[in-house]
Amino acid sequence: MYRSHSCGELRASHINTEVTLAGWVQKSRDKGFMIWVDLRDRYGITQLIFDEDRTSKNIIEKAKELGREFVIQVTGTVIERQSKNPNMETGDVEVLVTKLEVLNEALLPPFTIEDDTDGGEDIRMKYRYLDIRRNPVKENLMFRHKVSMEVRKYLSDEGFIDVETPYLIKSTPEGARDFLVPSRMNEGQFYALPQSPQTFKQLLMIGGVDKYFQIVKCFRDEDLRADRQPEFTQIDCEMAFVEQEDILNTFEGLTRHLLKEIKGVEVNSFPRIQFDDAMRLYGNDKPDIRFGMEFGELNVVAQHKEFNVFNKADLVVGIAVPGGASYTRKEIDKLVDWVKRPQVGALGMVYVKCNEDGSFKSSVDKFYDQEDLAKWAETTGAKSGDLICVLSGETNKVRAQLSALRMEMAERLGLRRADEFAPLWVVDFPLLELDEETGHYHAMHHPFTSPKPGQLELLDTDPGSVKANAYDLVLNGNEIGGGSIRIHDKETQAIMFKHLGFTDEEAKEQFGFLMDAFQYGAPPHGGIAFGLDRLVSILGGQETIRDFIAFPKNNSGRDVMIDAPATIDEVQLQELGIKLKNTP
Amino acid sequence: MYRSHSCGELRASHINTEVTLAGWVQKSRDKGFMIWVDLRDRYGITQLIFDEDRTSKNIIEKAKELGREFVIQVTGTVIERQSKNPNMETGDVEVLVTKLEVLNEALLPPFTIEDDTDGGEDIRMKYRYLDIRRNPVKENLMFRHKVSMEVRKYLSDEGFIDVETPYLIKSTPEGARDFLVPSRMNEGQFYALPQSPQTFKQLLMIGGVDKYFQIVKCFRDEDLRADRQPEFTQIDCEMAFVEQEDILNTFEGLTRHLLKEIKGVEVNSFPRIQFDDAMRLYGNDKPDIRFGMEFGELNVVAQHKEFNVFNKADLVVGIAVPGGASYTRKEIDKLVDWVKRPQVGALGMVYVKCNEDGSFKSSVDKFYDQEDLAKWAETTGAKSGDLICVLSGETNKVRAQLSALRMEMAERLGLRRADEFAPLWVVDFPLLELDEETGHYHAMHHPFTSPKPGQLELLDTDPGSVKANAYDLVLNGNEIGGGSIRIHDKETQAIMFKHLGFTDEEAKEQFGFLMDAFQYGAPPHGGIAFGLDRLVSILGGQETIRDFIAFPKNNSGRDVMIDAPATIDEVQLQELGIKLKNTP
Repeated sequence: MYRSHSCGELRASHINTEVTLAGWVQKSRDKGFMIWVDLRDRYGITQLIFDEDRTSKNIIEKAKELGREFVIQVTGTVIERQSKNPNMETGDVEVLVTKLEVLNEALLPPFTIEDDTDGGEDIRMKYRYLDIRRNPVKENLMFRHKVSMEVRKYLSDEGFIDVETPYLIKSTPEGARDFLVPSRMNEGQFYALPQSPQTFKQLLMIGGVDKYFQIVKCFRDEDLRADRQPEFTQIDCEMAFVEQEDILNTFEGLTRHLLKEIKGVEVNSFPRIQFDDAMRLYGNDKPDIRFGMEFGELNVVAQHKEFNVFNKADLVVGIAVPGGASYTRKEIDKLVDWVKRPQVGALGMVYVKCNEDGSFKSSVDKFYDQEDLAKWAETTGAKSGDLICVLSGETNKVRAQLSALRMEMAERLGLRRADEFAPLWVVDFPLLELDEETGHYHAMHHPFTSPKPGQLELLDTDPGSVKANAYDLVLNGNEIGGGSIRIHDKETQAIMFKHLGFTDEEAKEQFGFLMDAFQYGAPPHGGIAFGLDRLVSILGGQETIRDFIAFPKNNSGRDVMIDAPATIDEVQLQELGIKLKNTP
Repeated sequence: MYRSHSCGELRASHINTEVTLAGWVQKSRDKGFMIWVDLRDRYGITQLIFDEDRTSKNIIEKAKELGREFVIQVTGTVIERQSKNPNMETGDVEVLVTKLEVLNEALLPPFTIEDDTDGGEDIRMKYRYLDIRRNPVKENLMFRHKVSMEVRKYLSDEGFIDVETPYLIKSTPEGARDFLVPSRMNEGQFYALPQSPQTFKQLLMIGGVDKYFQIVKCFRDEDLRADRQPEFTQIDCEMAFVEQEDILNTFEGLTRHLLKEIKGVEVNSFPRIQFDDAMRLYGNDKPDIRFGMEFGELNVVAQHKEFNVFNKADLVVGIAVPGGASYTRKEIDKLVDWVKRPQVGALGMVYVKCNEDGSFKSSVDKFYDQEDLAKWAETTGAKSGDLICVLSGETNKVRAQLSALRMEMAERLGLRRADEFAPLWVVDFPLLELDEETGHYHAMHHPFTSPKPGQLELLDTDPGSVKANAYDLVLNGNEIGGGSIRIHDKETQAIMFKHLGFTDEEAKEQFGFLMDAFQYGAPPHGGIAFGLDRLVSILGGQETIRDFIAFPKNNSGRDVMIDAPATIDEVQLQELGIKLKNTP
């Protein structure tokens, strides 16, 4: 063992003990007759002291040569510090060094290994192993470990069994694009990496495993939007003989456990809101309910005058921004510009200042009188001093725009507090979603989601109106989990595949094994999957999942540290029976 | 919830309670006026009773239609059984059914869902979801879950952090063949699936994580020998600032913990044996030490007579088989045939019966007298009543042959007891191994293994003699873990790569990031990886890892249940920028 203690361990009680420490030189101060070195390891920092009077000359000489991030081993005596540092756990003591060994030298790191580093994102990713030495990154990884452990502990105690499902599976073009793996032993054939273990966990239910979980890597070959990773981690769960209510209760329990164990927060209320209501009240299926600003739909009280912009809109809808009445004209103009940015896409914004004296001042005073505006205030819940912001247009678009504005205003007003946690379930999702480009319906969750009882017939007449036993767990404006009760009989599954545009042959080819399995005694079952990367980052009070992944990829799917993907040997291609498209 | 209790839960204390159960029909007995149904779920079996006098007619009718593996839900009253079954946990009671719902019908399963099934391996693999319903398979999966949980618990308590490393990495042709994943976003380039997270865990040590572990899937595209899987699971661990002794102690602790928690066995002794001694005494680097039959090398006492077979052999070596003196001539002939099988490959076998009267009778009495044979008995530790089996030939070959015979005899004699656990460390492995085909040396563990201090110079003069700080943990004749102290400086690593036949360019291309990392303050570090599949099967007292994998692949790397790998769409190939070799 290279050390008797860690660098975070020594206290006043260790004074006069001889200790051996090992770690990295965080910094050193050379006063000529005395040298102090901060020695760092995962557990903390301990101050070393080299003193002309008490340390041998050759060790002093060696100490003078130490550079930042050198790896050293020292032996010495723990002594009381002259000037204690109450901000350091080891701040009462220092180690008077009697032996020093340089275990490894270090080049000057390309950025400072400090909490606030001078390194930009790119250089930190290239030297991720140095970035990990920094407290914020290291602590994120330790935090993730803690969350994973608590998840496993809770679910295992609840009778869930961790079952590993295979990574080399079959490509199912439904959904996102698969990563493919050419098979050398079966030339011309390919494995696919799982987008999720969906079918396998259903087969485990058919196999009688009853309660399954797994923390598992999943893969999607998508064009990467910001903060998406081609490989990501899922807490994947499934239960048999359950109804939706059982699953919601079980995973409320998990979420409650995590919030308590990890954050020390007791959350008692997990409100449930229907998808339609979430869209109506927040314009969003993952509403942040830490704050109000609920939507007020104004069609009835805003489409009776000569204001054509509103009259021809499908939806006129507003929110009351607390304290916004005090905004200057310039500030409001900026807000209008903000909603007109292409990322938001509104054509304009109508506003109403709710003055302290009870009167209103709006950008549409020409069309609406005080009585009209009072009704708008009532509908949006605006109080004196608030600013009502109103958007109008096609329903789905305008909801998305106002939702963006709502979140932006909450952010500006400091209402999205990282230490507050407001979970909720969004339930009764539509089964199908219309792809506006192709005019086809596709599964909103996935093709295995069960329609609500009695709604199967609607698939033929009004597919868009069919609701599913599908639910999302939303935390602070982020979907952290989603799932559904599954179809468990072959006939319903066949009907679903047909409506999703599968021919019988395609369904059989891709999912024949599951359809077969349904015939051998499939129990009712359902489940949920949590995005671990996202969950951890939200629990950690941060927004970027990359900060909680040890070795993330960039937006082009590259690992810039190891420089992957990369070209491969011609021999390897040969063995796999493939060739590159652009070679002869 | 479809049930108030599980099928394993009801006891005499529940009598007169109304309960709802759900599960699978294990079997039913129809006596006309009375029907008994065994209802099964993950937790057990409960007997249901339908009784003409007490059950309504239409339910009786429905019950008569129930087939094996139907999924049903019943409500009824717990009553005392007339004839109790002490072999069933629920054997004191039965449920008098008042409500019956068929949740799903079932086709007749292709094999019986019993502990001893009539289904062969192939059919059970195709319908693995049915196979998993059988107790032996289900219990193996639950056992694996328990082992994984205990591993995580122990290591986490010891300060190890579970860090997820990437699955989409870079191909490094050293070692086994990689599975490759074409990158769509980086056309012409490929990711590789990790054969192990080796370089990443070393980077985590350089990053100051100090103690890392992960239960992680690894991938090797090898021609599959029996009981190998293309994807397998590793308990992967690494520690910084440690010497070999620290790692051995830590993972003795883990192994001791598992044996105690999982098997209730206290193992105190973890003997350590040098690789050279293991080969000399057992002809094997993973000796089973639950029994004796250590090798006795007989060159000195067997090469002084006119028996040319021995005189021209590099090694003459024997074992004493307990009680073997009583074997008939026919039995011994069979043994000789056994060692001459191509799988073993001996040219013949010399034997000596150690008679109860202290005399010897051998197959080479023509050449050796009683005094000679007494010396053989002494060297092999043979006692009266034993049979000495002697092989001779080229050292490595004859050791392998005698090792095979030793294991076979132990098996026949019942000395390989599944409930006995005898771990040991094999240490001081050679750093390099000569590939007899190519005449080149390659790394016995991997290129990152550190040579023993002071032996680096031998690489030039006598590479085969260089020993490494490498160790295997062996349990009952199986390697369950292996690891090494790693190289942690760029110079040594460069020397290693050179001796392994890498050009500077190749080393830089493939491992440049690691070599770079070594320059920024790499601590001394080392680690170990356990094969979880193997570990679990040995702890479970079984030999076949496939029995402990939920969805294993067959020897051609195929998943016969989902029928993967499979052909893919032309569109998918297009998108990936590849084409099949045999298409235009």
